[in-house]
Amino acid sequence: MESLALNARPLPAGFMECLATRFGTACQTGDAIRQQHGASESQYPTVLPDAVIFASSTQDVVDCVNLCREAKTAIVPYGAGTSLEGHTLPLEGGISLDLSRMDAVLSVNHADFDCTVQPGIRREALNAHLRDSGLFFPIDPGANATIGGMASTRASGTNAVRYGTMREAVLGLEVVTPQGKVIRTGKRAKKSAAGYDLTRLYIGSEGTLGVITGITLRLHPVPEAIMAATCAFETLAGAVETVVQAFHCGVPMARIELLDAMQVRAVNLRSKLGLAEVPTLFFEFHGTPSSVAEQVETVKALAAANGGGEFRWATLAEDRNRLWRARHEAYYAAVNLRPNAIGFTTDVCVPMSRLAECILATRAELDECSVPATIVGHVGDGNFHLIFSIDPNAPYEMAEVEAINHRMVARALAMDGTCTGEHGVGIGKQQCLIDELGEDAVDVMRTLKQALDPDNLFNPGKIFRV
Amino acid sequence: MESLALNARPLPAGFMECLATRFGTACQTGDAIRQQHGASESQYPTVLPDAVIFASSTQDVVDCVNLCREAKTAIVPYGAGTSLEGHTLPLEGGISLDLSRMDAVLSVNHADFDCTVQPGIRREALNAHLRDSGLFFPIDPGANATIGGMASTRASGTNAVRYGTMREAVLGLEVVTPQGKVIRTGKRAKKSAAGYDLTRLYIGSEGTLGVITGITLRLHPVPEAIMAATCAFETLAGAVETVVQAFHCGVPMARIELLDAMQVRAVNLRSKLGLAEVPTLFFEFHGTPSSVAEQVETVKALAAANGGGEFRWATLAEDRNRLWRARHEAYYAAVNLRPNAIGFTTDVCVPMSRLAECILATRAELDECSVPATIVGHVGDGNFHLIFSIDPNAPYEMAEVEAINHRMVARALAMDGTCTGEHGVGIGKQQCLIDELGEDAVDVMRTLKQALDPDNLFNPGKIFRV
Repeated sequence: MESLALNARPLPAGFMECLATRFGTACQTGDAIRQQHGASESQYPTVLPDAVIFASSTQDVVDCVNLCREAKTAIVPYGAGTSLEGHTLPLEGGISLDLSRMDAVLSVNHADFDCTVQPGIRREALNAHLRDSGLFFPIDPGANATIGGMASTRASGTNAVRYGTMREAVLGLEVVTPQGKVIRTGKRAKKSAAGYDLTRLYIGSEGTLGVITGITLRLHPVPEAIMAATCAFETLAGAVETVVQAFHCGVPMARIELLDAMQVRAVNLRSKLGLAEVPTLFFEFHGTPSSVAEQVETVKALAAANGGGEFRWATLAEDRNRLWRARHEAYYAAVNLRPNAIGFTTDVCVPMSRLAECILATRAELDECSVPATIVGHVGDGNFHLIFSIDPNAPYEMAEVEAINHRMVARALAMDGTCTGEHGVGIGKQQCLIDELGEDAVDVMRTLKQALDPDNLFNPGKIFRV
Repeated sequence: MESLALNARPLPAGFMECLATRFGTACQTGDAIRQQHGASESQYPTVLPDAVIFASSTQDVVDCVNLCREAKTAIVPYGAGTSLEGHTLPLEGGISLDLSRMDAVLSVNHADFDCTVQPGIRREALNAHLRDSGLFFPIDPGANATIGGMASTRASGTNAVRYGTMREAVLGLEVVTPQGKVIRTGKRAKKSAAGYDLTRLYIGSEGTLGVITGITLRLHPVPEAIMAATCAFETLAGAVETVVQAFHCGVPMARIELLDAMQVRAVNLRSKLGLAEVPTLFFEFHGTPSSVAEQVETVKALAAANGGGEFRWATLAEDRNRLWRARHEAYYAAVNLRPNAIGFTTDVCVPMSRLAECILATRAELDECSVPATIVGHVGDGNFHLIFSIDPNAPYEMAEVEAINHRMVARALAMDGTCTGEHGVGIGKQQCLIDELGEDAVDVMRTLKQALDPDNLFNPGKIFRV
């Protein structure tokens, strides 16, 4: 792994006192808190912030931004810390701005299928809040992430094949700009052609252009009928082919997830699902009862023709929840295939026509690899991950894994795919981004960053070098 | 109407000769061509470019951009000229860059449901090209616009309620930047979290940030079953209420369009549909036969409960085409309610919960207005238009219409809606944009513009004053 190139800026005299005066106990500098905010869920070493500020309001964010700008101190927004690409690490020190206390649901507009929330609310809490409304928020990256973090990284996950990603899910944002202005990027109309699409500019900007302090989200009616099942396949190729054919048939799947044999084994170990340890698809169908029946019929026929076994239905809501909880914990299950291991995940997404070829070529590489690894993916979108369980005491393992990831990204780009379907660029994919879009396109991004954050104070060191 | 504030920059000596040398007969300065490129389909007076360049390749665009940058001469991309907000008018003179000769379909990926086209192809030509592929491109703003123009204005139209707008339809763009670099903003994966969303930044930027020279579009499989119908209503309120209830029931309508009585009269006059001249909905249902049957059943029940009559089915493909052609020509039909009239259209979009109130308040205003006007709308999205037929010899009419539009935008914004659902800001909605998002948000847009186009050469005078 490339060095993190730490470049902590010295704090100006009196700055910490200013913060303490303004924020009182919401400004914390204790070791445990700084450790927690400087750690990562994946392969990155801990990098400590100088202080953690817990914001409780947009005004808190504005004041923190203004103090940091005057002091030329870096500021890294922090939600649930579930990023897999090191997004929350304060590479130049400074402030970790924790938004988890800003977790209110500000409004739910039942008649318009939308709601407005603060950034620190987590997706499961939002859906718990919506439980009796007949509406739900579909975007589900697995981790119980904050909505602000999900917007910042353009997250997606299991439901994206039917309901889209955070790009489609957000109607408008409230953002505190690097200049300390509070702007709103959109209203609640279903569509708009009013000026530059600032909403989409901030979605996926990974905290580098300001701090998201409010999000207006599209919601969806809970479908009349929901059915979930697993289906075991003789071969990985058969499972993938089923997905591609379901796409071609236009089946409006809500979820269609692939787990290879090793991932099923990991999930069995952690979640006691008792599945056959072979390549498996997890399905969920949403719609009216007759539409779901029609979808199931089509997909069953496709699976059977591709070496799939019987569908094993999760009929009760609690069975369904257990199934998807197990899927959500796939990352931890896979990392824990070895005790005390470090996780490392990959994240390519390719056009559907190349998916089978891409997965099979990758699986062949894994068969030669000394590090245990699983394949798991939102294959209905052409997106899949490898999850490696790396021995921290065997440095050659990290090098081996990075080489595989490098080849995997090159393969995906050669197939007209992307180096990151949903995890973002963060620290580790900056060269991949250049390989994907070219230096001139990344230069346009740098120009935007330079214009909006001229002192490079917002999450410096992420996405690209300025 | 505010003055167009013409501010033609003087051309440097020898510039026209440079253009002529580089482009030969693809550089035109004749009156007729300049008139055609300086005219507008709506209320704006003609503004002549100094020359029209017909680009045949991305290299032509690069060379034109480089020559204009060196000469500090404005450049306005031109497609089909169907904008209703004066987008193609060269307010500071300079070059009208006509992209209509770049009209090739570069590739169709049947297995991925996508294609890549040049910007000058029109949407009807693209669908004609796709006719035997089993795929179609759904975005349909009515006018037979170019795909490049549609991307530039974030167009949508009748199918957006089901298939989304140009924001969702574009996978990636090729853009020539103001610096003359050719960038590609995305590859062909269905989703990506790779860096800032440059694709969405250019979509809706109205030619102010560069020139779009290639577009990769999502396509959709032609549905197994398509059914179209009209339904006449006793009242405007009943028609709108039917739409709102269909939204609440989650019916995946492909099209649901409202025409008020006056618009039906205009359409009858132009297209001989022979419809009852009362408020009417035009529907289209897409899906499997059983899903379409289910949708029709639901919507029929809703219509009947709201004073709707029998559904009048357009059963044959040619009947359906005739119906939608008539709908597409609604603008011209309405403007031509008076001979030699000037058209003026409005374009608000509001949350569904406020749609009925917004339309009825607007209709009440029209009842007091001396200028003939119709209501027509993509009501499934909360988007509707007024089309005024203005006597050019009665100046008070324009003032009356502008006052109505002003109040209508204020009403939509108070309802948390937008001043433009799909036509864009162009010349006439710049104050509306500030009213909608605030001066600070528009300042962020200005900062982006200044960073990417520091000499303000690309479609100057549109969206905002720099």
